[in-house]
Amino acid sequence: MLACRREPVPYTPVWFMRQAGRSLPEYRRVREGIPMLESCTRPELITEITLQPLRRYDVDAAILFSDIVVPLRAVGIDVDIKAGIGPVVQTPVRTPADLGRLRALDPDDVPYVTEAVRALVAELGERPLIGFAGGPFTLASYLVEGGPSKNHDKTKALMYGNQELWHALLGRLADITISFLQIQVAAGASAIQLFDSWVGAVGPGDYQQAILPHTRRIFAELGSAGVPRIHFGVGTGELLGLMGEAGADVVGVDWRIPLDEAVRRVDPGKALQGNLDPAVLLAPWEVIEERARDVLIRGRTAEGHVFNLGHGVLPETDPGVLARLTDLVHAESARTPA
Amino acid sequence: MLACRREPVPYTPVWFMRQAGRSLPEYRRVREGIPMLESCTRPELITEITLQPLRRYDVDAAILFSDIVVPLRAVGIDVDIKAGIGPVVQTPVRTPADLGRLRALDPDDVPYVTEAVRALVAELGERPLIGFAGGPFTLASYLVEGGPSKNHDKTKALMYGNQELWHALLGRLADITISFLQIQVAAGASAIQLFDSWVGAVGPGDYQQAILPHTRRIFAELGSAGVPRIHFGVGTGELLGLMGEAGADVVGVDWRIPLDEAVRRVDPGKALQGNLDPAVLLAPWEVIEERARDVLIRGRTAEGHVFNLGHGVLPETDPGVLARLTDLVHAESARTPA
Repeated sequence: MLACRREPVPYTPVWFMRQAGRSLPEYRRVREGIPMLESCTRPELITEITLQPLRRYDVDAAILFSDIVVPLRAVGIDVDIKAGIGPVVQTPVRTPADLGRLRALDPDDVPYVTEAVRALVAELGERPLIGFAGGPFTLASYLVEGGPSKNHDKTKALMYGNQELWHALLGRLADITISFLQIQVAAGASAIQLFDSWVGAVGPGDYQQAILPHTRRIFAELGSAGVPRIHFGVGTGELLGLMGEAGADVVGVDWRIPLDEAVRRVDPGKALQGNLDPAVLLAPWEVIEERARDVLIRGRTAEGHVFNLGHGVLPETDPGVLARLTDLVHAESARTPA
Repeated sequence: MLACRREPVPYTPVWFMRQAGRSLPEYRRVREGIPMLESCTRPELITEITLQPLRRYDVDAAILFSDIVVPLRAVGIDVDIKAGIGPVVQTPVRTPADLGRLRALDPDDVPYVTEAVRALVAELGERPLIGFAGGPFTLASYLVEGGPSKNHDKTKALMYGNQELWHALLGRLADITISFLQIQVAAGASAIQLFDSWVGAVGPGDYQQAILPHTRRIFAELGSAGVPRIHFGVGTGELLGLMGEAGADVVGVDWRIPLDEAVRRVDPGKALQGNLDPAVLLAPWEVIEERARDVLIRGRTAEGHVFNLGHGVLPETDPGVLARLTDLVHAESARTPA
């Protein structure tokens, strides 16, 4: 929390996107036979899965176990997560009439989230819980394509070709996202991260015109809550400055751009989060150590730095390596404070 | 060719990556019942498919119809292209022993390429034929993963974790690529493009250390041929400067980065190619027109500009739109020369 607010820290804080998930055998065990979206709607499972990585790693935050389509399903969108594929939307959202299906999200739509966050906050004590939501472009992509997509063709065709419908769609998605995050903060989450994972598919001009206004509204509405807001996407080298302008306190950076270069692209007044390539964790420890040190050194040029990977933990990652990496980040950064 | 050499042109030249392919009904017709890799080994089909777009569009170049795995299959790698999936390698290349399967490529391994290029050059007259090959990272990714991959995890694990094997692998791939391109140039191709499509998955430090030396050798070996060399990858905003240093005459740019910003990242002495988002072509004509003009205006800041999309033509693209776009680029750029 201190690093997010760009205040002095005794050591660089660290957590990992997807620290809860398929890389953990205990996760695979509790998920056995339970479909993904069901596991995101059972409070005791959300709580258990969110806590699992904290029993293994000395990470500085928990992140709510959820999925970006949870609030969409909660308002009645016929979306499911198919194993090995990802989110699949039976009836894609492509016309003005389809917008009617994206009604406002109410706390009563996601009681399991409120319950899980409350239980987690009680359990976690001082350790912060980061709330979780998908960003507008990424949500729109799943809705418009009807599933995962390599190039987001239909989504971009809509974005380029029908601005009115596009902004109406992103407006509704922003409304749902604001509610989803407010519900988490009201239940006790002490930070939030907006995952606009695929927004890097768009150039800066389009980001500014077609996406930024909606993201800005999300962060503005969350501002009064007083919790640090983190903004993350993959392949966003050209967008980092604009993503900072969207109003987050922390800008997430993937591994394609060195952190010190990212610092130059983001206006002052922001902390950065990142950015070790998740695939580095598949290499021998000496390589991981060297790369992690490099990230820490470059991260010192930022006003605040939260150590993380540049994207989610890969399923084939050895949990022992993540434990060792967490300790390395703490020890190294405590030795040579920023 | 003039634009590639940064000489004055009467209008901005234009061609489209994947101008030959699934967007054309006549392509789907001739391919009916013929597997992809077979169609790349039959000279009369290569010739016919390469010429198809030139009957519809007034583009300034043809590009040899082929696939990046053609030379790998020609040296005996058990690779096939599965419809709806992509290249699948039965026995992935992951150990020093596997390298033995990547023997040198000889002109006799690809007689169909020589024959097709000769026929095409005779047919095309003044219009240039661009030769075609895959780049080292992208080829390595298919070989190591055994197929298409979202994150190139195994490939990067090798790149990060076993430098000796990695460089040995890329060295062999560079050898094969050099031969494959030399064969095309010897048969009459008047330019070449190296498609390192997925190299944008790697950060600049790794590109420089793990990939650049091999790409540089490919372009250097082709240098004596005196034909313009084009270098293309997707999501390469952070790599453009290094890709220029690799020795190409023309650096391809995807739509994520405005061309005038790309100009700033590439050292002087290079032309640029790009960079309209292929998804723009799915929008109404007025949008396409506006976006194409914007690309042309930004392209004027480059020492030479070849108009293209930022990646391949999408299969659902209307060929009529590509014809109209080609004419627009010519007319607009002739009216307001750079």
